[in-house]
Amino acid sequence: MPALEAYRRELDYSYAPGVFPSMECMLKRPELARRLLISSKGDGSEGVRKLTALAAERRIRVEVADKALGRISGKENCFAAVVFEKQSAPLAQEKDHIVLHHIADQGNLGTILRTALGFGYHDVAVIRPAADAYDPKVVRASMGAVFSLRVREYGDFEDYRREYPDHAAYPFMLDGSVQLDAAAKAPARPCALIFGNEGAGLPAEFSRIGQPVRIPSSEEVDSLNLAVAAAIGMYAFRR
Amino acid sequence: MPALEAYRRELDYSYAPGVFPSMECMLKRPELARRLLISSKGDGSEGVRKLTALAAERRIRVEVADKALGRISGKENCFAAVVFEKQSAPLAQEKDHIVLHHIADQGNLGTILRTALGFGYHDVAVIRPAADAYDPKVVRASMGAVFSLRVREYGDFEDYRREYPDHAAYPFMLDGSVQLDAAAKAPARPCALIFGNEGAGLPAEFSRIGQPVRIPSSEEVDSLNLAVAAAIGMYAFRR
Repeated sequence: MPALEAYRRELDYSYAPGVFPSMECMLKRPELARRLLISSKGDGSEGVRKLTALAAERRIRVEVADKALGRISGKENCFAAVVFEKQSAPLAQEKDHIVLHHIADQGNLGTILRTALGFGYHDVAVIRPAADAYDPKVVRASMGAVFSLRVREYGDFEDYRREYPDHAAYPFMLDGSVQLDAAAKAPARPCALIFGNEGAGLPAEFSRIGQPVRIPSSEEVDSLNLAVAAAIGMYAFRR
Repeated sequence: MPALEAYRRELDYSYAPGVFPSMECMLKRPELARRLLISSKGDGSEGVRKLTALAAERRIRVEVADKALGRISGKENCFAAVVFEKQSAPLAQEKDHIVLHHIADQGNLGTILRTALGFGYHDVAVIRPAADAYDPKVVRASMGAVFSLRVREYGDFEDYRREYPDHAAYPFMLDGSVQLDAAAKAPARPCALIFGNEGAGLPAEFSRIGQPVRIPSSEEVDSLNLAVAAAIGMYAFRR
């Protein structure tokens, strides 16, 4: 077996650090799992036992790899990680989409993926430059949700739009012309909920795309946290 | 002036790291500000200029303190921090409350404070053990929202309850007996929205307190991120 490298975007594999995200990979996308790394300190853990049993069943190689686990997770007490093959998938044409435009923070991206799955969205477009949905930190923050989603990266918004021209676009903007409650009452379907960068939000030109939406909030705050704003939007628009 | 210590809970002062949180302190609670620390690298920054002008106006001492800023913020590029006096306030009897039970993560606590302010909640009870709302990391994650809120810590939930027995309690639980949409349609006021720990949620006995609420979400996820769940609850219940 080749040596495991520190994760970088160019690799065709990544790591799901932690027992829970590893379990999600083994249960939802076992065909992507290449190896299971476990810690010598995790012997007593029920989660590690379950993972090892699943790996045996599916003939996935298991390795005790304390050093690699520390390096991958940046933590001392990471008991397991699955090495998995990265696999992008086309988004479903008929389903609602979440479109993330220039999201920079790995924790935000992971949290948004987890929330998307929580509210029944399975299709996520990531417009670059952006955090990498397969980065181990994102996989961990998503609690493995990425294994239940179709995620695809695009070089810019127009590339996405060309593939899915019929999705009703709802860009979330601080000065969106319609309030969330009203927009979510009877949205056009399938729809694309579009969220912008943590600091800059969506560029001004999105105010001419589809129906810009604003989340009603107090003037006492400048804005909401991005993962919070996206969650509220996804909740309000869920089917 | 006494030397500035590394923050710990026992101190009667804390730090608001970053230009934005410092500005919130200087604008909303200037009477709490004891000193303004600025970085020698922040000379060109408009934010630092504004802060320095506000400090001069209010006769608050300004110090160039690069080392202290690095230590307080854990970052190299922190341009300013206000040293402020911690001041707990009783919650308003007639207003809705946010009650946070055993919240452990500083980032979550800060994000929840920011979201609370964003949706017009000004009164937050923190039930210990919990992250410290005045910790510089929480102040920063809250974007200074803490300076616009009344925050009070309680040793346990009963202590809070004794002070505010008439608030209609809505504990958020994965198995809450009423769905959020229904509960938030015509809630009893004033109300207390109660959120539990990141991993454990609220203890089972909360199912017998007030009206337990569940956020409808897919079985594909174990739970939502706490700051996300709290945000959705606060959004749905906002006045």
